[in-house]
Amino acid sequence: MSQNDDKPGQGPDISRPEARLPKGLQDGSAQEIRATEAMLATIKSVFELYGFEPLATPAIEYTDALGKFLPDEDRPNAGVFSFQDDDEQWLSLRYDLTAPLARYVAENFQTLPKPFRRYQTGLVWRNEKPGPGRFRQFMQFDADTVGAPSVAADAELCMLAADTMEALGVPRGDYVVKVNSRKILDGVLDSIGVEEDRRLTVLRAIDKFDRLGRDGVELLLGEGRKDESGDFTKGAGLSADDINTVISSTCPVAGGNAAALEKLAQLPETEAGANGVQELKTIADLIESAGYADRILIDPSIVRGLEYYTGPVFETELTPTIKDNRGQTIRLGSVMSGGRYDGLVERFTGERAPATGISVGVSRLLFGLQLLGKYTGDESQGPVVVLVFDKDRMGDYQRMVQTLRAADIRAELYLGSSGMKAQMKYADKRGAPCVVIQGGDEKERGEVQIKDLALGATLTKIEDREEYLKKQAEAQFAVPEAKLVEAVRQVLSRQKT
Amino acid sequence: MSQNDDKPGQGPDISRPEARLPKGLQDGSAQEIRATEAMLATIKSVFELYGFEPLATPAIEYTDALGKFLPDEDRPNAGVFSFQDDDEQWLSLRYDLTAPLARYVAENFQTLPKPFRRYQTGLVWRNEKPGPGRFRQFMQFDADTVGAPSVAADAELCMLAADTMEALGVPRGDYVVKVNSRKILDGVLDSIGVEEDRRLTVLRAIDKFDRLGRDGVELLLGEGRKDESGDFTKGAGLSADDINTVISSTCPVAGGNAAALEKLAQLPETEAGANGVQELKTIADLIESAGYADRILIDPSIVRGLEYYTGPVFETELTPTIKDNRGQTIRLGSVMSGGRYDGLVERFTGERAPATGISVGVSRLLFGLQLLGKYTGDESQGPVVVLVFDKDRMGDYQRMVQTLRAADIRAELYLGSSGMKAQMKYADKRGAPCVVIQGGDEKERGEVQIKDLALGATLTKIEDREEYLKKQAEAQFAVPEAKLVEAVRQVLSRQKT
Repeated sequence: MSQNDDKPGQGPDISRPEARLPKGLQDGSAQEIRATEAMLATIKSVFELYGFEPLATPAIEYTDALGKFLPDEDRPNAGVFSFQDDDEQWLSLRYDLTAPLARYVAENFQTLPKPFRRYQTGLVWRNEKPGPGRFRQFMQFDADTVGAPSVAADAELCMLAADTMEALGVPRGDYVVKVNSRKILDGVLDSIGVEEDRRLTVLRAIDKFDRLGRDGVELLLGEGRKDESGDFTKGAGLSADDINTVISSTCPVAGGNAAALEKLAQLPETEAGANGVQELKTIADLIESAGYADRILIDPSIVRGLEYYTGPVFETELTPTIKDNRGQTIRLGSVMSGGRYDGLVERFTGERAPATGISVGVSRLLFGLQLLGKYTGDESQGPVVVLVFDKDRMGDYQRMVQTLRAADIRAELYLGSSGMKAQMKYADKRGAPCVVIQGGDEKERGEVQIKDLALGATLTKIEDREEYLKKQAEAQFAVPEAKLVEAVRQVLSRQKT
Repeated sequence: MSQNDDKPGQGPDISRPEARLPKGLQDGSAQEIRATEAMLATIKSVFELYGFEPLATPAIEYTDALGKFLPDEDRPNAGVFSFQDDDEQWLSLRYDLTAPLARYVAENFQTLPKPFRRYQTGLVWRNEKPGPGRFRQFMQFDADTVGAPSVAADAELCMLAADTMEALGVPRGDYVVKVNSRKILDGVLDSIGVEEDRRLTVLRAIDKFDRLGRDGVELLLGEGRKDESGDFTKGAGLSADDINTVISSTCPVAGGNAAALEKLAQLPETEAGANGVQELKTIADLIESAGYADRILIDPSIVRGLEYYTGPVFETELTPTIKDNRGQTIRLGSVMSGGRYDGLVERFTGERAPATGISVGVSRLLFGLQLLGKYTGDESQGPVVVLVFDKDRMGDYQRMVQTLRAADIRAELYLGSSGMKAQMKYADKRGAPCVVIQGGDEKERGEVQIKDLALGATLTKIEDREEYLKKQAEAQFAVPEAKLVEAVRQVLSRQKT
């Protein structure tokens, strides 16, 4: 029915809504969903192996319970989707899985086993300006240990990251887990006298090293920086000397964990700095004795952009050079990151509940793995399609479909109203391995025709006539209806090989 | 740290938020998550077998794109969580998976295979008054076929429901799929001259038969009904005769599908009614020839409470008497329901796109299955816990844990700061099958102690001294550290038997 066919007297419906999605939101295709699910199942199996238990918290929380722990928290109320409940209390969609965990632990502290180890996977929402690869809804997969003051808990999350990469098929050498302690930077800032209120600015500046390079970071540590769009970001206002001190203390160190620890020990001595170095030494020892020293590396450049971290912080990078479709090298960034946050639960209860966690950036990791040729989702197969030759015999066709399904063969009846040619096109579009046809003649003979679409597609390339006829006979053949399942199974198995 | 330990000079933090969830929202436990995931995996396998492809749409849509298709749509804006975007356009959280599907199909109509068959699982949100078993966030699992005018598509969804029940372990005879056509009721209302604007009220009245009984439905078809809380619901205002006609035409019919069709054919003849009977005849034939006539039954009492249905409607019920903990019989209602909606996509495009779909009420179905003793989630096992006897030897213990994990044994290091007694309690609370202990003496001998917690728990019941000593030796024993994996595997396998 076209717009002109509206009921007489009504006229066209001017209130017809437009079918579109709000910016920064997207639909997921079957291929993306299958790839994501396969990847998540692997991640889950590793998290389970490490003893983490699943938890689900709802998407909606009280705004005050979530708090403001987003990188852009200096813009009041920015970053979060919020709305008022019937009783006028403010609700928000969760922006990560850590803030809801803190609420959950505070609410159930008495009854939980301590330490409490949980993993959670779920969607989170950010009310931010969307951009390329930057969406307002995305998925996270987290593991956290609450009530574990020992840095053994942090070291374990680094090992979890390493084991997750290998379970996902990333070979040793193609990933690295980088670890640092936030206390090192705290010590440096103590030594040069940077006050609390400028520290977050310093932190975020260093965290942008990868993206902006040394020059950009220097501007953000100093007076400030104007970006390509002309927006000016106010800097931390450090002196040139202090900028040098901060940057040199957050440079990556070559030569392995012993060399990194040695260099960090030479920083101006402060209480925080000494604690940080001691933490990293303990982590290095644990990693060494568990056999992970070749892939979990101390790296002073890792600081993370969130204010709430209080100790070890870690990131996971895929190390092969990754190129996009146009051959451009892609800076993927960290695919699995986290750190220690000893204050999040305390903000509810006043009771100290030291915690540490790690989060998988699900779509970024999948993107990286796919560029490395993994989880591309190419292997899934469409259903066998039973075509409708004669509309009066739907019952017969439906029975065939149910027979195939009962034999655990993915199958469907063509349910549209088009003719045979369109039905064949439909089967092609669905990626059907074969179609089943029963016209009047076949019905009389008690037979069905089976057409192998994969083999059929290769026929046009065959030049030798005899070969052609042979293959043609293999590609389309009749069998007694009672042998339907057997014949379809043969087609499926020869397509698999 | 208690509230009094706040930093000097700061005083207690009076802005400390309360750790609580908004009404009608809940956290999901590990057991619930595992049970739900196992159930969803089974449902998914059946939907895949039927040729449906996965689709994911985002949680947030434009409010006008979702439209208002909730049962309580007469309260303007009720039922949905809504908020404004930066550009002041209204956004809403999806309240079901059907409205977003309509938006998706309208947006991508040209490129989709037609018919388009998709399944989707995801959370939906209703801004309604919560009640027992009634939450503001819940999960749905839908299958829909768009672009299929034939009622064969409806018949297939009924078979899908039947096959899903059996795959979930519900034996034939313990479930029934009920099917009717909305057109039958349309015909009855045509014959007694009920106008369009009262039809939704009639529909919802009949849909409440299960809950309110005949008396309640009669009131809602007539002047109206006052509920227990004193709230008055205005009725459809039908005359006593008309109420009788409506109720008698929507009574269940005993004697199978042939008897039901015969009774429906005797209703006053109208165009809509005749179409409805013809639809049900076709469905009955398809079901018969596919071998489902014993479990898919035509039932005139099924109408569904949503206005948008235009043809066949169906519900799935578990038939055994289900009782709650207090022995009260529970009316579970339908666990898998749906119907044909030919207008939903048309509202965007003006193009007719006949569609039919079915939706699993995930938590209601799980609740029902669990009361039938299925998917209770009792079988999952906690991790092996390596205890920390000597805090200076964390590296040794961590290595043991990693050795167990590398052998695919779920294991963890105790990461808290308490002594051995609390560690044993922790292992118990986690449901650990066994713990691993290495004190100084064992370390010297190159051994580890393994303590079987399941066997250990039975010791106190043993009265015979020799038997006790024998079991005690089995429950706690030392092995060389090199045999750790082997010994733990033995404990795990003897616990499984």
